[in-house]
Amino acid sequence: MSQTSPFIQETIAAIQPVSPEGVRRVEVLWDRLTKPQGSLGRLESLGTQYVAITQSLPPQNPDAMMFVLAADHGVAREGVSAYPSSVTAQMVKNFLQGGAAINVLARQIGAQVRVVDMGVQEDMGAPPGLWVRKVGSGTCNMCDGPAMSREQAVQSVEAGIRLVREAYADGIRLIGIGEMGIGNTTVSSAITAVMTRHPVADVTGKGTGVDAVQLANKIQVIERGIQRNTPDVHDPLDVLAKVGGFEIGGLVGILLGGAACRVPVVLDGFITGAAALLAVALAPHCHGYMIPSHVSAEPGHHLAMDSLGFHPLLDLDLRLGEGTGACLAIGLLQSSLACLTQMATFESAGVDEAVGLFPDMV
Amino acid sequence: MSQTSPFIQETIAAIQPVSPEGVRRVEVLWDRLTKPQGSLGRLESLGTQYVAITQSLPPQNPDAMMFVLAADHGVAREGVSAYPSSVTAQMVKNFLQGGAAINVLARQIGAQVRVVDMGVQEDMGAPPGLWVRKVGSGTCNMCDGPAMSREQAVQSVEAGIRLVREAYADGIRLIGIGEMGIGNTTVSSAITAVMTRHPVADVTGKGTGVDAVQLANKIQVIERGIQRNTPDVHDPLDVLAKVGGFEIGGLVGILLGGAACRVPVVLDGFITGAAALLAVALAPHCHGYMIPSHVSAEPGHHLAMDSLGFHPLLDLDLRLGEGTGACLAIGLLQSSLACLTQMATFESAGVDEAVGLFPDMV
Repeated sequence: MSQTSPFIQETIAAIQPVSPEGVRRVEVLWDRLTKPQGSLGRLESLGTQYVAITQSLPPQNPDAMMFVLAADHGVAREGVSAYPSSVTAQMVKNFLQGGAAINVLARQIGAQVRVVDMGVQEDMGAPPGLWVRKVGSGTCNMCDGPAMSREQAVQSVEAGIRLVREAYADGIRLIGIGEMGIGNTTVSSAITAVMTRHPVADVTGKGTGVDAVQLANKIQVIERGIQRNTPDVHDPLDVLAKVGGFEIGGLVGILLGGAACRVPVVLDGFITGAAALLAVALAPHCHGYMIPSHVSAEPGHHLAMDSLGFHPLLDLDLRLGEGTGACLAIGLLQSSLACLTQMATFESAGVDEAVGLFPDMV
Repeated sequence: MSQTSPFIQETIAAIQPVSPEGVRRVEVLWDRLTKPQGSLGRLESLGTQYVAITQSLPPQNPDAMMFVLAADHGVAREGVSAYPSSVTAQMVKNFLQGGAAINVLARQIGAQVRVVDMGVQEDMGAPPGLWVRKVGSGTCNMCDGPAMSREQAVQSVEAGIRLVREAYADGIRLIGIGEMGIGNTTVSSAITAVMTRHPVADVTGKGTGVDAVQLANKIQVIERGIQRNTPDVHDPLDVLAKVGGFEIGGLVGILLGGAACRVPVVLDGFITGAAALLAVALAPHCHGYMIPSHVSAEPGHHLAMDSLGFHPLLDLDLRLGEGTGACLAIGLLQSSLACLTQMATFESAGVDEAVGLFPDMV
């Protein structure tokens, strides 16, 4: 592993593996509840993971925050998206006004939405509700050279770590991540291709919606970007700097910072999956602090999740981003924690456990 | 189709196909919202189905009711379950005390739970909160003859229809169904084998948890029950009477009654899937009013869903029943309706739609 920064190294060093003993203790709790053992399936393992990470039985709904990190991408000039870069800033305004899908879905789960300008092209100033952590006014076009400098890559990751630390100090005990950035499925395909060693064509999809000709162009653009920059798979910050984006660096920082603070971080779709690949390469133990939510319509997302050994909870053909899939998964997690903390036990309810006829069964 | 009863016939006759024009109108609404078209995937189609069925834009959370129908099964005497029949009544008491998974999950989505005694073996009296619609004190053992008389089959279906009518009169506009009955995965395997013409061994699983030897016995018991009674696949009430159960008849009635009242009914797991097979055979149009929720760990449930052309929303290895999976799907539906009714439009938010470069795309 090549050099990062003292702050990033200190964060990585603070990440402990999730305790298997903690997992077993929660499983014992589940088995006392009035239901056949294991019959709530993955709803049980979801709550188990949460409690094993935080090492305490939670209140019904831990205070949750959705981070939506926005930035622009120089590569958008290559015609890889159906939308112009100006839509990034427009959507950030929409987030601040509460009109986007992420706002609605976060309200449904009772989570705050923290909108962060990591590097939107437009100078948006500092309108109420916007957290400005701008690393630059959009990245450079990776077809012409590195998307950003190594210093900017470090800066974006450090910004993400600080975002989590502030949220943790405010009592946040559950984080969902999302993003907005025209061109960022292109960037995520580049990262995914490099980190999983799959061919670009296998990890590249239609994003918000391009046709077959535009998809062929998108694949060529990504291949050119990788060939031009030769990112080093053994150096995640090099990959981030050369073919990444400012919001993706921020997401990497949130993933590292969440694990260091023992706060579970719920992934969203393809872009957050690319960030997860980088974060796990930097700090393998942060894997256990991530909760995969959904598998998106983007083909590269399946491969990234497979590469990470994740089996997302939902498969709803979502391809919006923003953190929308993460919100839906947090809803499931809330249901799990509610069962764990509110259900009656066999003893308290006077219900017989599995009969003695089958002692080896339950 | 053989004879049912005037009341059932009248209900079936009232079921209209869901309007494709209504579906198109809702799709137009989705496409005005600030997101790439179709990018919320199946979350969009879920809300579309709800609005097309009810033919009105709903409030954020339509009043919802979870029906949990309980009954016992004579076939439980054949050692097909890990639990004794007495657990059915014990769990009904747990439902009434609010300690079961269904109580917790229904609270999460703000739904009422209506617990119905369709035929529990024990005489439970009429404790507060229990809706007594008892058709008998458990069915007969299908290995010795029909589980119930044809009159009882009609009575159970009619009871289900009346349950929906009462709920509809009380303002309920969304129904989830669940059940409790030791032995009812056995009965559901029998129904599924008959209705889908799959071999019994392919549609029979471990239920609440039997081992390989007990599973082999369970398969033989079901085969004997079917051979003994020769249920007529062209006469769903004959199948219900010969190898069904009182709670399953009630579920069939709720599915028919929901469709007749234009109230969507959210399915749960294997047992509700068996009821759906019977309901669709009785009234093909009620198919469009059903919302599949999850695919359970029971192998027969996959086959039943395939047979119905349903692609459930969730795959979480749930095998509890009670309506727990239906609750989770209703949570997703609520999220969908919240997006549909609360998101900003492109026009209201001042966000550009897909650029003119790609006019054929969005």
